[in-house]
Amino acid sequence: MINNLDHLISLVKSLPKKVIAVAAAEDAEILEVVEETEKIGLAQFILVGDKRKIEHLALTHHKTINCKIIDEPDHQKAAERAVKLVVDKEADAVMKGLLHTGVFLKAVLKKDGGLNIGKFISQISIFEKPSGDGLMLLTDCAMAIAPNLEEKKKIIENAIEIAQIIGYEMPKVALLSAVETINPEIQDTLDAAILSKMADRGQIKGGIVDGPFALDNAVSVEAAKHKGITGEVAGRADILIAPNLQVGNVIHKSITYFACKDLASAIVGAGAPVIITSRTDTVRTKVLTIALACYIAKASV
Amino acid sequence: MINNLDHLISLVKSLPKKVIAVAAAEDAEILEVVEETEKIGLAQFILVGDKRKIEHLALTHHKTINCKIIDEPDHQKAAERAVKLVVDKEADAVMKGLLHTGVFLKAVLKKDGGLNIGKFISQISIFEKPSGDGLMLLTDCAMAIAPNLEEKKKIIENAIEIAQIIGYEMPKVALLSAVETINPEIQDTLDAAILSKMADRGQIKGGIVDGPFALDNAVSVEAAKHKGITGEVAGRADILIAPNLQVGNVIHKSITYFACKDLASAIVGAGAPVIITSRTDTVRTKVLTIALACYIAKASV
Repeated sequence: MINNLDHLISLVKSLPKKVIAVAAAEDAEILEVVEETEKIGLAQFILVGDKRKIEHLALTHHKTINCKIIDEPDHQKAAERAVKLVVDKEADAVMKGLLHTGVFLKAVLKKDGGLNIGKFISQISIFEKPSGDGLMLLTDCAMAIAPNLEEKKKIIENAIEIAQIIGYEMPKVALLSAVETINPEIQDTLDAAILSKMADRGQIKGGIVDGPFALDNAVSVEAAKHKGITGEVAGRADILIAPNLQVGNVIHKSITYFACKDLASAIVGAGAPVIITSRTDTVRTKVLTIALACYIAKASV
Repeated sequence: MINNLDHLISLVKSLPKKVIAVAAAEDAEILEVVEETEKIGLAQFILVGDKRKIEHLALTHHKTINCKIIDEPDHQKAAERAVKLVVDKEADAVMKGLLHTGVFLKAVLKKDGGLNIGKFISQISIFEKPSGDGLMLLTDCAMAIAPNLEEKKKIIENAIEIAQIIGYEMPKVALLSAVETINPEIQDTLDAAILSKMADRGQIKGGIVDGPFALDNAVSVEAAKHKGITGEVAGRADILIAPNLQVGNVIHKSITYFACKDLASAIVGAGAPVIITSRTDTVRTKVLTIALACYIAKASV
């Protein structure tokens, strides 16, 4: 069981070092996080991209880059090459550098020669519970814009899988909506009821699934008690399933900018961990995201 | 200019005490906040409700209630009576006790004998900026479920009015959406563009209005810079306008449960401040909400 984000980092440091293939690494911010991650002994990198630019950037930004560089200035080819390194088991995870997300993901999810294993791709944010009692997962904040019932089921399954990897044997999954009661006019509340019952019937396995919940009664035992909501998940959620990307994204950003807390982010559902960091992420957030990918890669072996 | 929430409380304590009429005050939690608010010298109360129950609750919960009690066990009549106290200038604000919000608001918004002044009613949450640089307003988290363009304009105008009362001469208003670019398929981004231009043309006055913004580039100068978003509002918003209630509510709750910060809440647009606290609010939050109503009442005189 991983207790907090520092614990995640120290666990990963104690493991054999994972190798991360970066697509289009010709970016000062990417080189900064590569240098930082190597310095603390968290992972090794193979940089795929414009070698001349990478070396020039390293020089001008005083970055010491000790890793292998594969020269491939073309973005699409660089993405495909980075993915191939993972497919060929020369790397454990693939990371997006300075190229369009669409181009990167297309290479990752190529049916032939990519990391497409037929699963739904979703994003999960991981942060420390306000109670200090372990990590909380929040999904989806970045990939699935308006998931339908079937897609929500897959988002839940992806999240349960990651929660189990970080140590929750039977994670408590809260399906968020604007309200905690069923309202026939709010589709999210109907979806939540249906998904809860699917889990009751064994159609979603590995977690205790309940909803709808408003955010407060999912994460606060007091708030759940005030509303008279019972059950194992109420106020004690390990996983928060947002009804749509807008809600997931705004919770993620509230945690970053109002709670000023670190988050790690994972893209899951591919044949290996996929790392996408945002330019606005702090170096610490980027390092945490890489650590999480390494930890998930370890579990997938 | 009010710098923070403690400053709000100390300012209100220095003013002549405002009188708050509570509708259906027969509730232990209401009596607790009444006692606490009177103790710190913030406001006076007139309790309208079931007098026998109020006195019994005060006795059993050891609450010292020094205020006038008007016996009216019927909820609708109690709400109407509390509103009448404000209309008759015997009280400065009206507060919801233990009765349905619908019944309470119906009395508040009655065209004849209520506090309906023909304005749109909206809710505003107020909290301290993460930068420590004054207060931030967030609207609407509780009243307007899916405001249309015209309603969003009124929500903005209500927020600007309150921002000016708390000391922002020309508040910076950020219109939130999932993304900061115009996307013809996301109505919120179109509304934001239109509302920004309405403000440019003087159709919304008293604030600098810009949008769409994603939450991060509205509140973080760094994040705005990363995205190349310029303008006075980018990263420096004083007011956040949520595209819908779901988003507003989840930001409010993230601030409460993840950032663990206090918020005050105001219902604005009626002829006097309207106070609705939630059962899950802390006593501190309830006291802050009352203080905010007193401060707004002072400005309306």
